[in-house]
Amino acid sequence: MSVLPPSVAWSITDGPEAVAIIDQRLLPGELVVRRLETVDAVIDAIATLAVRGANVIGSAGGLGLALGIRQGLDAVVTADRLIAARPTAVNLAVAVNLVLAAHRAGLDPLERALGLIADDTEQTRLIGEFGRAELAGVDTVLTHCNTGRLATTGWGTALGVIYAKQAAGEPIRVLATETRPLRQGARLTAWELHTSGIDVSLIPDSAAASALGQGLVGAVIVGADRIAANGDTANKIGTRALAVAAAHEGIPFYVAATLNAVDLGTASGDAIEIEERDPAEMLEGIPVPIPVWNPAFDVTPGELIAGIITEAGVLRPPYAVSLKEALG
Amino acid sequence: MSVLPPSVAWSITDGPEAVAIIDQRLLPGELVVRRLETVDAVIDAIATLAVRGANVIGSAGGLGLALGIRQGLDAVVTADRLIAARPTAVNLAVAVNLVLAAHRAGLDPLERALGLIADDTEQTRLIGEFGRAELAGVDTVLTHCNTGRLATTGWGTALGVIYAKQAAGEPIRVLATETRPLRQGARLTAWELHTSGIDVSLIPDSAAASALGQGLVGAVIVGADRIAANGDTANKIGTRALAVAAAHEGIPFYVAATLNAVDLGTASGDAIEIEERDPAEMLEGIPVPIPVWNPAFDVTPGELIAGIITEAGVLRPPYAVSLKEALG
Repeated sequence: MSVLPPSVAWSITDGPEAVAIIDQRLLPGELVVRRLETVDAVIDAIATLAVRGANVIGSAGGLGLALGIRQGLDAVVTADRLIAARPTAVNLAVAVNLVLAAHRAGLDPLERALGLIADDTEQTRLIGEFGRAELAGVDTVLTHCNTGRLATTGWGTALGVIYAKQAAGEPIRVLATETRPLRQGARLTAWELHTSGIDVSLIPDSAAASALGQGLVGAVIVGADRIAANGDTANKIGTRALAVAAAHEGIPFYVAATLNAVDLGTASGDAIEIEERDPAEMLEGIPVPIPVWNPAFDVTPGELIAGIITEAGVLRPPYAVSLKEALG
Repeated sequence: MSVLPPSVAWSITDGPEAVAIIDQRLLPGELVVRRLETVDAVIDAIATLAVRGANVIGSAGGLGLALGIRQGLDAVVTADRLIAARPTAVNLAVAVNLVLAAHRAGLDPLERALGLIADDTEQTRLIGEFGRAELAGVDTVLTHCNTGRLATTGWGTALGVIYAKQAAGEPIRVLATETRPLRQGARLTAWELHTSGIDVSLIPDSAAASALGQGLVGAVIVGADRIAANGDTANKIGTRALAVAAAHEGIPFYVAATLNAVDLGTASGDAIEIEERDPAEMLEGIPVPIPVWNPAFDVTPGELIAGIITEAGVLRPPYAVSLKEALG
């Protein structure tokens, strides 16, 4: 269905072995697959956001370490350098350290890195299938930000549910919010779905409540950056507004995420610190330094979430119980 | 307080008599007052959106007709030409026809045009004062789109309440939503308030629910494009989301508008047709023609509105009764 190449892969064609990535900085204007033939090139791609999305960054890091080891570089030094490329990206450190541990245990680091990608891909496949069963009667979905083929090594989390419906030949229409200020919904999601042959319409973030109020939407599905032990979910700014509007209209609101987004060490959303982004993202064309409040994420209360769609199935409230069981 | 000149005025300094306007196409990059010394210049300014905002367009049209009559042009022909500059702008036709009727009755058309502006200005002054009394205990307000000095001939409707608080020396802080896709909240509201010395922060539309949820806001105030007989209110897209989020958090949501926005001939919001805007406004940087749903307005149910702040006072539910009384 999709004409998109994988967001990250191991490449042995068209040159020496390499980590192949879609350069996401050029999207959607240009679709360029870049072959990263050295660890330095992998580090540069991670640091400059040519690769983005937690799972994609982790996968690129794991493959990068395997590449370095195969080229005779010191494994520990290379692992440290890769992790330092995005120090706050948890998935990057986890993936690189797992590949390093495999190598030290005498296992093949490339096989381990590819295995991690296969695991990620399989997890999103399961999310898609569980979500498809859950949304059996729904033919129009509203989503926010980017959670698909570009953000994961599979078909995505929230978008995975949509791709699963498409793969099963079920009718599916998507309303994709623009997702200001960085417009991932316009630049990535709407473009990715349109390119994949899915009936998608881009809408301003502010039009979502109207679409829900007019009965145009059967369900809302979003991804998650972090899920607290009680189900409170941190995700891209604007998610909470969608959950509140969906609740007002009696439309089910779902979170779709791999279980590695669940943090049982965070009791509730109150404990999640919300980073603020650069004011300049909002001040295009404004000649004076007007103060800006530009939070990266918001927190959606667990009680507004009808279900959390994971690779272990659709979790139900009370999430304090179901999340613990799923991870246990 | 404000360093802004009037959005539209009669000018007899710096040249022959003229209609003086702020050229809103250049804001906020440049603050340019343009003297329109001919009817053709007035028509051009209206047609090209150099003047915008229903009341401002009407005022410019009324002054334009007075200018033409004083320059010896045919009054009826000039009136028709002015009205044709923005055929769907109801305020324009109303103002021009009132000035024409005054002229035909042997009255001074300029005096009539200036009287209409004075009425508009006084109405927004009253809205500001009634709103200030209503919001006596509120020091932080969230607003949407642009409803201030640039959109009216006075200090505005929703922003009038804020300016009234400032004028009274009361503490007031404003969160202004960006208002995608045309960004009137960023380019006009935040800039106008900042320029007027008011503590304002610009936020993405999608961050409003989070601001309300965090208890940062005491009330939401917006303007209105049309108010139906039952209080359902059409206003800039995104208004409904704010009303729903405010209701969820128990925060009062107000509409501030002059009574000429009330249309008792429209029974409810269901009867209001919502025009769609140009998809191109949403597709900046997107190389493929992705479908877009870009509605100009949405409808907020009257039951989500705590009060409608007008020049006749703050109207309360049930609006089917209070609106009729206020107009009767």
